[in-house]
Amino acid sequence: MKEKLSIVKIGGNVIENTRELEKFLTLFSELEGMKILVHGGGKLATQLASKLGIESKMVGGRRITDAETLDIITMVYAGLTNKNIVAQLQSRGCNAIGLSGADGNSIRAHKRPVKDIDFGFVGDIDGVNTKIISKLLTSGLIPVFCAMSHDGQGQLLNTNADTIASELAIGLGDTFATTLYYCFEKPGVLLNVFDDTSVVKEIDTKKYKQLLTEGVIADGMLPKLENCFHALNNKVETVCLGNMYMLESNNPFFTTLTL
Amino acid sequence: MKEKLSIVKIGGNVIENTRELEKFLTLFSELEGMKILVHGGGKLATQLASKLGIESKMVGGRRITDAETLDIITMVYAGLTNKNIVAQLQSRGCNAIGLSGADGNSIRAHKRPVKDIDFGFVGDIDGVNTKIISKLLTSGLIPVFCAMSHDGQGQLLNTNADTIASELAIGLGDTFATTLYYCFEKPGVLLNVFDDTSVVKEIDTKKYKQLLTEGVIADGMLPKLENCFHALNNKVETVCLGNMYMLESNNPFFTTLTL
Repeated sequence: MKEKLSIVKIGGNVIENTRELEKFLTLFSELEGMKILVHGGGKLATQLASKLGIESKMVGGRRITDAETLDIITMVYAGLTNKNIVAQLQSRGCNAIGLSGADGNSIRAHKRPVKDIDFGFVGDIDGVNTKIISKLLTSGLIPVFCAMSHDGQGQLLNTNADTIASELAIGLGDTFATTLYYCFEKPGVLLNVFDDTSVVKEIDTKKYKQLLTEGVIADGMLPKLENCFHALNNKVETVCLGNMYMLESNNPFFTTLTL
Repeated sequence: MKEKLSIVKIGGNVIENTRELEKFLTLFSELEGMKILVHGGGKLATQLASKLGIESKMVGGRRITDAETLDIITMVYAGLTNKNIVAQLQSRGCNAIGLSGADGNSIRAHKRPVKDIDFGFVGDIDGVNTKIISKLLTSGLIPVFCAMSHDGQGQLLNTNADTIASELAIGLGDTFATTLYYCFEKPGVLLNVFDDTSVVKEIDTKKYKQLLTEGVIADGMLPKLENCFHALNNKVETVCLGNMYMLESNNPFFTTLTL
């Protein structure tokens, strides 16, 4: 039987709030078994850019990463955010090790080709180095990934944290029984977007199609769920969607997705 | 017989100059056997602080690390400098992994007690986690340490890179036959400080005492050499002092220190 592995992704809403982050790190440190944390960046990078007089260029909600912006992202994501998370996890008895995709050649990507928009130094993932990540895990370490990859030619690349989490879960699915947790603002997939208690607790392929037809899954949830089922179709056992309290063992309010 | 391990420390003069850094990284990547890189920070942190309107306070050549300065150091040392070095080593076939002392609980320290001067968030090292560092090394990874440690209570600490290098060499001296390379501006210990060809090629304890009596070792070289002999007296086999070209196999112009 494969050993269990939890991969947890947190976004800006947790990282930007010191108290929320501390709560989350306590929950994460209490999670049993092997685990990996993936964190995005959020507003801190935009704030630093603004202080330095560098304009943050966004197209369709996505950051355009020029050379100056890449330096800022490297400082904030891989430096400030990542190392503070690692230090705090250490204080909770979690032997965390902070990584970018360049470290241990763990996440290889290529610069996104220019079509209509030049996103700059943004990476589309080619593969994850499951061998080295497994070695870290079996050494008792808890990898903490920031949203960066590299191209193997010396170039760091800004990379979507949701995609890093799912590619890690998929890549490690051969070796481990993998559960992917996406922590976001909502407690899960909601039947009524204005009612946080209307969480759909279980979604399988049949239910997914039904909810799509009924229009319950729409807008921003469409790519999120597509990404979840992509993972499930590629050796990931379970995907959970909800706020950070889904990591609590006795909290039933989140969405579990299976095939 | 113990396996060989090289620990190389580079300072600001290499890091601040892109071409020099590239040359160094090529030399480092060509070094055979297990190895560790330790890098300081240098002027980049001061430059970023100045751009952000944060005054860099120095006392006797040492930075006073208040909370704002610690954030800057974390961004520059652990983020920008460390990850770019790692990405560049990866492009040279070196499986580098960038670390602060918090990562893998690798370097534990305590905040320096306040006597005459409050240095702020500066760490004095308590110990290195040789078990985890050995695991990384035997997994084929090449640790790249920035000049930061942690206190185990969630606090990152700014820590002297020379000391990190010697403490790593001392700690790993039980397991490996360790050589410590200190790269600095000069090609080694000089008989005549104005003549770069006057390198003293070999210094043992007897020669060290003689050079001290003659006043050849003075000023800034005094603590450097003291640090080197401290390492030699604590299981480090060899210490080499010189510029980065001492890593070239056919370069005889550097100083080798042994007991």
